[in-house]
Amino acid sequence: MLMNNNDRPLILITNDDGYRAGGLQALIEAARPYGDLLVVVSTESQSGMSSAITVKVPLHVEKYAEKPGFTMYVSNGTPVDCIKIALNKLVGRHPDLLLSGINHGANSSVSVLYSGTMAAAIEGCMYHIPAIGFSLLDHSPQADFTPYTGHIRAIIEKVMKNGLRSGTCLNVNIPKIPADDIKGVHVCRQARGYWIEEFEHRIDPNHREYYWLTGDYFNEEPDARDTDEWALKHNYISVVPVQIDMTCYKSMDKLKRVFESD
Amino acid sequence: MLMNNNDRPLILITNDDGYRAGGLQALIEAARPYGDLLVVVSTESQSGMSSAITVKVPLHVEKYAEKPGFTMYVSNGTPVDCIKIALNKLVGRHPDLLLSGINHGANSSVSVLYSGTMAAAIEGCMYHIPAIGFSLLDHSPQADFTPYTGHIRAIIEKVMKNGLRSGTCLNVNIPKIPADDIKGVHVCRQARGYWIEEFEHRIDPNHREYYWLTGDYFNEEPDARDTDEWALKHNYISVVPVQIDMTCYKSMDKLKRVFESD
Repeated sequence: MLMNNNDRPLILITNDDGYRAGGLQALIEAARPYGDLLVVVSTESQSGMSSAITVKVPLHVEKYAEKPGFTMYVSNGTPVDCIKIALNKLVGRHPDLLLSGINHGANSSVSVLYSGTMAAAIEGCMYHIPAIGFSLLDHSPQADFTPYTGHIRAIIEKVMKNGLRSGTCLNVNIPKIPADDIKGVHVCRQARGYWIEEFEHRIDPNHREYYWLTGDYFNEEPDARDTDEWALKHNYISVVPVQIDMTCYKSMDKLKRVFESD
Repeated sequence: MLMNNNDRPLILITNDDGYRAGGLQALIEAARPYGDLLVVVSTESQSGMSSAITVKVPLHVEKYAEKPGFTMYVSNGTPVDCIKIALNKLVGRHPDLLLSGINHGANSSVSVLYSGTMAAAIEGCMYHIPAIGFSLLDHSPQADFTPYTGHIRAIIEKVMKNGLRSGTCLNVNIPKIPADDIKGVHVCRQARGYWIEEFEHRIDPNHREYYWLTGDYFNEEPDARDTDEWALKHNYISVVPVQIDMTCYKSMDKLKRVFESD
């Protein structure tokens, strides 16, 4: 199905900003030396789609480009749909690596829960594919990703060489500073925080009220040096290992006493 | 904003099957004795929406019903949108409890990642509200939830009495068996597994190919007695504590060696 040289690694790529996003092009360029690329992306921006799957609407997927070592499909699905359909319908062999992004904007702290970029990476590691989600702290559609290619390649190379724990992927965020000012990589945990939402209230031409969702992130632990938010604020690239298993093991003993005692 | 007696707990309720779902009505009935209810739900089914948030489309929310101790709003948003807008625009005080569901169908194992029901519960505990997502292993729109009211109330009472660890909510799944055959509650972990997707291939009247997403769950550890899948298969209600923090701490040491050594 793919015009691949099977000696080369197969790298599956998606994003959540749509097929025209600059971050996707930058990731394709960064990944090109490391294998044959299969890109499966949405035609539309899927920001904030989290691990949403499409169950109410038919999924379309069509070939968009093909040249030696590079095949690209576009779909109307979410990032997770793109991964599912790639693994089930488009790949001829198990991918060696999944890359998602580069997202236009941060996916640190609890944003991992809302992020389509990270949902695609999580989906990949569910199927035992080493997976990395990349995000740059720059929301602009015109964000310039090229200065960070070296940093991104170094991370890709280390994952290809060392692998990742089964059921775990990486959430990589890059601060928006000159590449030479990046101090290095911090392996860290997801900071504790939440979004202070603001709903901008408007009235439409038919006099109907509506809201736009907007908001600011509130960091509950700004001084915690082992968090991604701290790393980014101090000019490090943050690398958080993210796991599929959401079980809170620390709650187990108490809950067993509460729920299993009668 | 709410016609509430402030001495009573405030219970925020949502679901992901839409405002007409039988599971929502059953949850409202189950919760009624425990406080004043604020129900904020989507007008449409939001199954598989995960923690998706609506950023591209205006959000509408309007009052649907109001009587003493009960207020209900409907919105075009996702379950997470409903919680965000409730907390920011609709509540006059911090809710004492968040209930989500009852979902028509299972949300055990990795389904927690795709579930709108559980995303709403996770959102609640991000804002430090004790939260429970309920699901019945019956996909039918006509599923009968009434036999399980006693079980659901027992769980609500225990959470109201004992609280939950901060940053943790409960994923409760109920097997589809006669209520008297339920052996009890198992506090357990999320089983390791994934969906074996099948994409049903069709051709539309305009000769365009499309797919419907469908599939079967594959349990990677069917004999693990500490998992939700095992509990449900053996006629227990499964209770999994679910945490916001997705960091894989077991990966930290190795990743620090790999990424921070140079």
